[in-house]
Amino acid sequence: MILEKILTENDVFWMHAEQGPEADIVISSRVRLARNLKKVPFPHLLNKDNGVQCFDKIKTAWKQINTLEGYNFDLKTLDELSYLDKQILVEKHLISPNHGKVGSHYQGVVLNSNGSICVMINEEDHMRTQCFLPGLQVDKCYEQAEKIDDKTEEYLDIAFDSRRGYLTSCPTNVGTGLRASVMLHLPAIVMSGQIKGIFQNLGQIGMTVRGLYGEGTEAMGNFFQLSNQITIGQSERDINNKLTIISRRLIEQERLSREKILKDMPYQLEDTIGRAYGILTNARIINSNEALIMLSSLRLGVDLGIIKGIKPFTLNELMVAIRPAHLQKKAGREMTPLQRDEYRAIIIKEQLQRKISDDQE
Amino acid sequence: MILEKILTENDVFWMHAEQGPEADIVISSRVRLARNLKKVPFPHLLNKDNGVQCFDKIKTAWKQINTLEGYNFDLKTLDELSYLDKQILVEKHLISPNHGKVGSHYQGVVLNSNGSICVMINEEDHMRTQCFLPGLQVDKCYEQAEKIDDKTEEYLDIAFDSRRGYLTSCPTNVGTGLRASVMLHLPAIVMSGQIKGIFQNLGQIGMTVRGLYGEGTEAMGNFFQLSNQITIGQSERDINNKLTIISRRLIEQERLSREKILKDMPYQLEDTIGRAYGILTNARIINSNEALIMLSSLRLGVDLGIIKGIKPFTLNELMVAIRPAHLQKKAGREMTPLQRDEYRAIIIKEQLQRKISDDQE
Repeated sequence: MILEKILTENDVFWMHAEQGPEADIVISSRVRLARNLKKVPFPHLLNKDNGVQCFDKIKTAWKQINTLEGYNFDLKTLDELSYLDKQILVEKHLISPNHGKVGSHYQGVVLNSNGSICVMINEEDHMRTQCFLPGLQVDKCYEQAEKIDDKTEEYLDIAFDSRRGYLTSCPTNVGTGLRASVMLHLPAIVMSGQIKGIFQNLGQIGMTVRGLYGEGTEAMGNFFQLSNQITIGQSERDINNKLTIISRRLIEQERLSREKILKDMPYQLEDTIGRAYGILTNARIINSNEALIMLSSLRLGVDLGIIKGIKPFTLNELMVAIRPAHLQKKAGREMTPLQRDEYRAIIIKEQLQRKISDDQE
Repeated sequence: MILEKILTENDVFWMHAEQGPEADIVISSRVRLARNLKKVPFPHLLNKDNGVQCFDKIKTAWKQINTLEGYNFDLKTLDELSYLDKQILVEKHLISPNHGKVGSHYQGVVLNSNGSICVMINEEDHMRTQCFLPGLQVDKCYEQAEKIDDKTEEYLDIAFDSRRGYLTSCPTNVGTGLRASVMLHLPAIVMSGQIKGIFQNLGQIGMTVRGLYGEGTEAMGNFFQLSNQITIGQSERDINNKLTIISRRLIEQERLSREKILKDMPYQLEDTIGRAYGILTNARIINSNEALIMLSSLRLGVDLGIIKGIKPFTLNELMVAIRPAHLQKKAGREMTPLQRDEYRAIIIKEQLQRKISDDQE
């Protein structure tokens, strides 16, 4: 039920910009906690037999959490989901691209109804509990993820070492098992040519910058995922604080850059934004890279009040709705890249026109 | 009066596509007849004194034509016109770029009320009588230009040699003194990659292809001026017939190419046209070269029925209204290139939106 809704509707909670602070620059915040069962081989060492045993333990725990704690989580194994449906979850940022590629019956996903909590089962670790919220809310993400994590620890024996902390499949996650990240939209910093230098500095202070879909993906349309690189030797609170502080600095920098561009070259800025709107509402064929670049400009226009009547929520939703799996799910059929480019143009036009008229009512 | 109207309004007769045949491909037709006074030095040899004598003879003749023949031509010397106003006439294609650059009191221009007749006085020849009509109407242009020319010959002694025909300043015009030309819009031939080959063939059969503003100007936005290269050894009728026949072949070729593109890649075509419309109606800065390219795509969209509610007349008018002098005349002030690019975007937006709503009424 829950999963079906998330697979068929675009809407997940992190898209609701109106419910998050600083959502003009921070699209969403995410926290994930990597946990593993005691005395069970890590996922990459599991086989059909011990894999099922491992999965059953986890499944039983979630059933108990639902029944005894009054939750309503939906648990599915990946072999129950089609390749397209797994890609839908990837495109919504709920599971990793790697988890979207596999399909065994001892790997799975746990979701709550609005998609703010998603647990990957037997991805790189036995459980990766994630919380996603709109805007800059790293602390709140951690709070909610930790709350769920605490529940699971009541029903499962989690591998924890008093000296090293949580044990994880990859040594880079040992300790807190925490990765906190924010998705930033930094068009003005990019326009001003400062982005490269800023990223180099961030690397030097233990932060990682990635593209829209995390590890190994390129930055597109001025969207960047910023996260902590180090999970050990710091408390969860320190990790979250550091990310929040750095995010606030980047927000400030982006706001200053926006003001500067508005002041120094208002027409050029309005031109870029106007053309993006013109292309998005009139193109007949558009690939996803161009669409993201244009949506980034349009979003800047909306944030600056240059474009009226389009909600940031609509743009967050569109960024996901134009991805290949979402397009094919909506069309109800497989599509060639050219067919997707055509359908993408239709979806964008529909969404932008519908939302504008909704807003004008 | 007449000149003032032509300088302040965009509208001249050749823009009225609805009044010309084949006006989806042939924007306009033009005929010019080069004539010189007997025993008067050619214009490049005139000085203050004999220049004024020459001009006075011509001026007297036109006064007589107006008074005795019931015409209402307006005659102005170029020193009566500002540089900007002369550029307005150039941009409307009524006078040559060279004639627009000079400003002596013995050079001038004669115009009728709708701009279908324009005579340049002391440009390269003493008189160059031109007729401009919308669509493919070379014969009718000639007929009207000849009628006016016959009148002037009644009141002036024209240099004519029984063996060589009309004598002209440049030997390439000796004979008929006739240049007939058509302004063609050939976007599909350009898209299909055939244009270069076609132009080479045209050169071999004595035809010249030039850009929007004649000699020495480059082709922009798929608009090409086709004219005869040879003025001697053929009758006027032969020259006009040849141009008409070749124009008809190009029209046919362009129509076939349009059909082929519509059939083979309808979405790509609609995409190009849709994006052009989106950019024209949303850009905040646009230079004249890009604007012409976009107007060419939009015009193709209008001709093919893909874009509704915009009249070809509006696009003909816009092609001229976006030129530098027209922009500055309308704004009532001198403008830097950037200011013009900004104002051009405003004018295009206004015209396209106004015309669409006019049409929907």
